[in-house]
Formats: sequence, C-alpha cells, structure tokens
Amino acid sequence: MLGVIGGMGPLATADFFRKLVDETPAANDEDHVPVLVHSVPQIPRRPPAILADGESPLPALCRVRDRLIAAGATALAMPCNTAHYWYDELAIDCPVPFLHIVDATVAELGDRARSGARLGLIATEATLAGQVYDARLAALGCELLRPSPEQMQRHVLPSIAQVKQGALAEAGRTLAPAIEGLLDAGADAVVLACTETPIALDAIGSPLRARCVDSTLALARACVRWWLARRTEATAK
Amino acid sequence: MLGVIGGMGPLATADFFRKLVDETPAANDEDHVPVLVHSVPQIPRRPPAILADGESPLPALCRVRDRLIAAGATALAMPCNTAHYWYDELAIDCPVPFLHIVDATVAELGDRARSGARLGLIATEATLAGQVYDARLAALGCELLRPSPEQMQRHVLPSIAQVKQGALAEAGRTLAPAIEGLLDAGADAVVLACTETPIALDAIGSPLRARCVDSTLALARACVRWWLARRTEATAK
Repeated sequence: MLGVIGGMGPLATADFFRKLVDETPAANDEDHVPVLVHSVPQIPRRPPAILADGESPLPALCRVRDRLIAAGATALAMPCNTAHYWYDELAIDCPVPFLHIVDATVAELGDRARSGARLGLIATEATLAGQVYDARLAALGCELLRPSPEQMQRHVLPSIAQVKQGALAEAGRTLAPAIEGLLDAGADAVVLACTETPIALDAIGSPLRARCVDSTLALARACVRWWLARRTEATAK
Repeated sequence: MLGVIGGMGPLATADFFRKLVDETPAANDEDHVPVLVHSVPQIPRRPPAILADGESPLPALCRVRDRLIAAGATALAMPCNTAHYWYDELAIDCPVPFLHIVDATVAELGDRARSGARLGLIATEATLAGQVYDARLAALGCELLRPSPEQMQRHVLPSIAQVKQGALAEAGRTLAPAIEGLLDAGADAVVLACTETPIALDAIGSPLRARCVDSTLALARACVRWWLARRTEATAK
C-alpha cells in the first residue's frame, strides 16, 4: 500500500491522486494501487521555515509519515517539492521506500536531462533557495535556469497563491509569462517543480504544457512503476 | 479529520477528493479539511455480493473503517453508493459520525425532492436492487424512475465499466441516452446515484449535467459543512 504525505497544498494532493489512478493500467478496480492519502493542510508552512525563522514542518511531517506506516503503508510519496527540503531527515529512519520527487522528475525528463541541457525551473522561492533540484540535475551536467526575481514576484508566486485559493484559470494566465521567459532565455524544457503549477496550466489548456515536465505526473508514474513491480512480484509468488 | 472509505472505484474516490477541495471555502492551505483517504480497490466487488452469492465486502469495509478511526478520523464518508447497502452494519458500532451519501443527495436535491416529484435514478443494478435510495426518497413522497432493463444493459452498466477502465469520453457518450430516456419519461431531475457517472458526463461536457444531481458532489458538500461547523466550534473554544 502506498502512503501519501499530502495537503501541501490539498489541490496538488488531489491532482496527484487523480494522476496516480489515470496512469495505472487497469481493466478493473482491483488492478489499482491501494493508497492511503493523508492530506494535512495544517502542516506548518514550508517557505517561512526555509527562508526565515518560521516553525519547522519536520515534526508534523514525521507524524504524518509515522501514521501512514503504522496504518500499513509499504512505500511513501510526498507530492510537494518544497517539502523535499526535509527529505533526508524524513527518509533516514524510514523503514519503507520513500520515492523522491526529483528522482521521479529526472526519470521523466529522460534524454532531456543530458549533459549540457538547459532546464528551466518553476518552483517556490523556498525550493530554489533550498536547492531541492540542484545537486541531482548538476550531477547529470544540466544547467538550471531560474525565473528572474521580477518573474518570481509578478508571475510564479502569485500563480501558486491563486491555485491555493482555487482561482485556477487566473493562475494559468498569471504563470504563463514566467514559462515563456525561461524558454526565451534558452531553456530546452521547463520543469514544473511546484505541484500547484501543472494545475494552473491545465486550467487554461496551455500549449506551453508540451514544453514542460510535470513533477506531479512524474511522481505518480514512479509510484505506478513501484506498484506494478510489486504486483508482479506478488503474482509470481 | 475526515476519513474516506474509498477505492470503489479509485477514480470516483479521486473525483470526490477533488470536489471536497474545490468546495471548501479557503484562502490558504490551512483552511482545508484534514483528510485521510483510504483507497482499497481490492475490496470484494459489491454487485455480486448483492445480486448473487458473491463474497461480502463487509469485513473488508469494516477493516478500512477501523483503520481510519484508529488513525484519528473523527467523521467518515464513503463515496460509493452501492457500498451504502452495508451502511447500517458499518454505522451501528461506529464511534464517529458517518455521513450517508443518500442524506447528502437529498440535501442537494432541496426543493426538487418535494412530494410528487419524479426523480430518475442512474445507479448500478445492485444499488437499485438493494433499494439504497428507495426508503429515503419515498418518505419525502418522491416517485422514482429507473432506467429500463435495456437502458441498463446498453447504457448504464457499460458506461460505469468504461469509467473504471479509464475510457471517460466514451463512457459519457454511452451514458447520455439513459439520462435522456429518464427525462423523456417525465423525470423532473436525474440523480447520478453511482459515483462513476458524473465523471463520464463531465468528460464530454454534457449539457445533461444541468438536469442531474451529482451524489459525489453532494457528499463532498456535506463533508465541507461538517468541517466548517467543526472548524467554527474549534475556533469558538
């Protein structure tokens, strides 16, 4: 059973769950991944804890993790990029596999994450400052392009806030210029490294989607691969 | 924290979760309902247990219920109409409120569930045979219109199976004539009393949606009302 540490934000968790179902090859209910999704929107905010001296969400994240494991989760996933700032501390004592959203996104990038590739990164300030993506993509020889401070303030951050408030089409229109800016600056592809942002683009049916890699979808697909391997193992036994 | 008994089917559970988030008035993550969604698509199939001598899903449903309560759920909901056949047995010893999908749908119907109203019912054979809706709507003086056996075999049941297989637009086109048939037969409104069916109609943007009441949305709204009352109580203390 897959355990999902969710609620950051709740709509992104719902989007992840939907993608998990959509991506599972299934003829019947029984073929689907058994899942326990714990959506706890009251987890202390991640950005102030990384960027300032806000309360750390780590104790709350540990409680959610432990509750999922106690309830029978045999693997974990967390569809929030910023919260992966605490991944090492969450995973170190974890008795079950914990799928990393950046590993999943790298797998989804495939050939696009080759040496010399220029990858745009749409993320929260905290994900950027916390360097959640940097080491993994640098190890592959990729160059990261970040939105300018002005693009962050005018486009990326307001768009994420709009998704959290349910203003989805508005969020899509707000976000689009930041992605166009990264493509104009030479990005080969743009990583939607905040799980609110694919929801924004989908709401306006943006053609920019084709130039982007969706970290939520990437994590869902990694979870489906985990389940299919496990289901096959279970059948083979 | 709301506990959700899900997985029957998984896409309907994901649709319920999305509607729960969409229907919650929220300016920030923190305003949303804390939820534990347990999606167990391996629960024994409901229709054969009601219509034939198939294995009962009740023990599995009880295990899911108990796991949710053990993990801290303070109210329960189950976004599957057919599974409400076992509601009384699930609710009788339940230490927390268990919101009933038919009560939620009756609340959503409002004035449309007045005495003398004719309500079409789109549901599985098992929900119809198990009379999940009958007593509550009869008590209000409503007359229920069911699809003909031919409409069930040609439209309703294939459409539900198509949703479970992810063929959503096809499912919408398959379902539409059954709804039109009920409206032609004089239904004032049609209750989508199977949580797969709103997904089918949404996939084709069907204008029939306006004549239908969505039991998934009704249950999500009932859960939001539960949460808002609780949140207000918690704030007042």
